[in-house]
Amino acid sequence: MSKINENLKNNKIVLPKPASPVASYVPYKIVNNLLYISGQGPFDGKNLITGKVGIDLTLEEGQKAAKLCAMMILAQAKEACGSLDRIFQCVKLGGFVNCDRAFKDHALVMDGASKFLISILEDKGWHARFAVGAPSLPLNMAVEVDAIFEIK
Amino acid sequence: MSKINENLKNNKIVLPKPASPVASYVPYKIVNNLLYISGQGPFDGKNLITGKVGIDLTLEEGQKAAKLCAMMILAQAKEACGSLDRIFQCVKLGGFVNCDRAFKDHALVMDGASKFLISILEDKGWHARFAVGAPSLPLNMAVEVDAIFEIK
Amino acid sequence: MSKINENLKNNKIVLPKPASPVASYVPYKIVNNLLYISGQGPFDGKNLITGKVGIDLTLEEGQKAAKLCAMMILAQAKEACGSLDRIFQCVKLGGFVNCDRAFKDHALVMDGASKFLISILEDKGWHARFAVGAPSLPLNMAVEVDAIFEIK
Repeated sequence: MSKINENLKNNKIVLPKPASPVASYVPYKIVNNLLYISGQGPFDGKNLITGKVGIDLTLEEGQKAAKLCAMMILAQAKEACGSLDRIFQCVKLGGFVNCDRAFKDHALVMDGASKFLISILEDKGWHARFAVGAPSLPLNMAVEVDAIFEIK
Repeated sequence: MSKINENLKNNKIVLPKPASPVASYVPYKIVNNLLYISGQGPFDGKNLITGKVGIDLTLEEGQKAAKLCAMMILAQAKEACGSLDRIFQCVKLGGFVNCDRAFKDHALVMDGASKFLISILEDKGWHARFAVGAPSLPLNMAVEVDAIFEIK
Repeated sequence: MSKINENLKNNKIVLPKPASPVASYVPYKIVNNLLYISGQGPFDGKNLITGKVGIDLTLEEGQKAAKLCAMMILAQAKEACGSLDRIFQCVKLGGFVNCDRAFKDHALVMDGASKFLISILEDKGWHARFAVGAPSLPLNMAVEVDAIFEIK
């Protein structure tokens, strides 16, 4: 078993079924050795976590939402590559947190996504990142994260 | 006539004159086989569509604004490449919708841009994407969209 | 002395010490000949400029904040490459301005970052860009800017 699959197993992570886009785009696109993953929401396969972090959701709930986005990102990467072993490194995450004007903890929220990827991909999981606020997100999802991976 | 130009003609699309940046940057940059297009607004060559979608503008007007952004993106791509036939594929769109905290239809708004690109570029038009809200955009434009293309 | 270092000296610019990420990510990632820099805030090494541009900060203060983000971006690029002479060109900036719904001058704010990079990198400093609003940013920073460079 590959190290990545072993980490998934040891952390009792079952990746969700890759979600179909809710509109006229594709979940991922490959160019050269770069894999671009569309913005993913906190969808566990059944429910979408909605609401504004800091108002409708606690910081911890926001972090859990960000982790779910990252799980869906990995699910899409697996679908795109056939196997997660083709991931050479995570290059970048772009993180949008549904929140209001007084919110300050975007970085802590996004750590829910970042720490998950690092826990599974280990050294290959470290990435560049931005984390910003959005006044609203599609379907009122709590967090939206897109990603770029280098694949082999 | 190439298929792309034929599609433009059949859809009675006349691309706008590529807009000059309103500030200290360039409309596009090429690195390797990647073409990065700066964030484009809904400018038809004469007027800029302004206002918040869901408040000042209806969903349909927001979709039309997103389509105008995509038309300007294609106009910039043509300017960058000399010919649209050098486009190998659209890799990614980044979509920002000017809206308030209760808005939920960002994906539907951005479909105005996505569907236009697919209608013109066909298979090459499908792309990864994010769609998020912004509390305000430059000059109060309704939508801002940037893009990455693979070119040959 | 290289032209870039000469420009820094002539403009009396001392780059700040590259800031450590405030969370679980890295400040930059290299893939192929592309250098991705994480979202940087207006941190001069001592203080972080906070507040909403147009409300807590004037336009000029916002521009200065954007310039500080670009200085930190250059500091990270130097750390990543060993020498700024390895920068072939700035490809793209992504600019998020902390502001409210009535703000319209995002492009002018981001010019603080863009003009700085052009002043130092000259022809290599011109870039594609987006500039958008955010209802809030991490730690209430005034501006957040990420970047992609082509390096050699």
